[in-house]
Amino acid sequence: MEEGLAYVWRRALPLLRSRLSSAFRHGKEAMAENAAGVPAPAPAPAAAPALHPKLQSVAFMLGTWRGEGEGGFPTIKSFKYGEEIKLWHVGKPVIAYTQKTWKAASGEPMHAESGYFRPTSDGSIEAVIAQSTGLAEVQKGTYDSAKQSLELRSSLVGNASKVVEIKRMFHVEGDELAYTVEMGTQTHELQPHLRAVLKKVSS
Amino acid sequence: MEEGLAYVWRRALPLLRSRLSSAFRHGKEAMAENAAGVPAPAPAPAAAPALHPKLQSVAFMLGTWRGEGEGGFPTIKSFKYGEEIKLWHVGKPVIAYTQKTWKAASGEPMHAESGYFRPTSDGSIEAVIAQSTGLAEVQKGTYDSAKQSLELRSSLVGNASKVVEIKRMFHVEGDELAYTVEMGTQTHELQPHLRAVLKKVSS
Repeated sequence: MEEGLAYVWRRALPLLRSRLSSAFRHGKEAMAENAAGVPAPAPAPAAAPALHPKLQSVAFMLGTWRGEGEGGFPTIKSFKYGEEIKLWHVGKPVIAYTQKTWKAASGEPMHAESGYFRPTSDGSIEAVIAQSTGLAEVQKGTYDSAKQSLELRSSLVGNASKVVEIKRMFHVEGDELAYTVEMGTQTHELQPHLRAVLKKVSS
Repeated sequence: MEEGLAYVWRRALPLLRSRLSSAFRHGKEAMAENAAGVPAPAPAPAAAPALHPKLQSVAFMLGTWRGEGEGGFPTIKSFKYGEEIKLWHVGKPVIAYTQKTWKAASGEPMHAESGYFRPTSDGSIEAVIAQSTGLAEVQKGTYDSAKQSLELRSSLVGNASKVVEIKRMFHVEGDELAYTVEMGTQTHELQPHLRAVLKKVSS
């Protein structure tokens, strides 16, 4: 297998560099020798994967949440939005995250984000988040299982024209998830930007 | 509205800083005054949103793709995986991206990624990608509508212990999407890491 793979790469690489499309055709032939060209079936849907032990202390976040939020900043007009957040796991020590918002009045799509939360057993947690605006975040912080809360601050904000810092706080109480996002820019220090309260609509 | 929002923040912030849970309760009351505490309904499902003009030249990427790939690197054992990639839009000038892989033999979940592709009309494209491993990428590159290909190279790799550079190439031909990922680390220069060929399973 190792040799076979090396062979595919050795054959494919010069072509890839000179001519992308022919390289792929070539690569596909090479792969077909191994895999008979048959696309892999989807994995058998594991009914409900067991929660990874590392996620037990942040399991309060899991679910699909829907509600309303409001945003503002000194440089923009305040606005209201509808929002859905999905937080789920597949049995690994990671919580997957997607979010989308829409204009409260019209339902027209606004913002979207996706990424992953990665807790450790010592109470720290990190998150990586990609935003539909083209911004990438690495967040580091802590969780509190008793209070069902998270507090994260950006250690990296990439590909942003103005944003330099983002702070995110989450709190779950009963069937409600509330969050705030604070933002700091090149011209304005860290301050409130978004807040929302969402209800759990499915686990 | 502006004033109302400022008022909510002014009230909520000192509490948020001292006591997260009570601050959220407080904020929720403040929001309830405006929004009657009723969670927003999901937006009306727009049947099929019109493609944004900026996406026309990269529309070849859109769809759900499933197939098989293989990975390798000098420092790891070569491996095969099943994979599903979803690339879709909601009417905005952005392509949303999620990806998941599973062990070819057992179907057990492996890696996952999500993010956004943002083309411009001059043939350039950027992508922000969050990986389930905790890594964040900003990718910059170009697309070729005639060849139905993309070539991107990381301008930023965040929160990685070893990876310093990632190059991603995509090519669509007929109902197949093929890609390669090259990786450079602190100890190994940019070289092939992943390749896969996927078939379109839905548009």
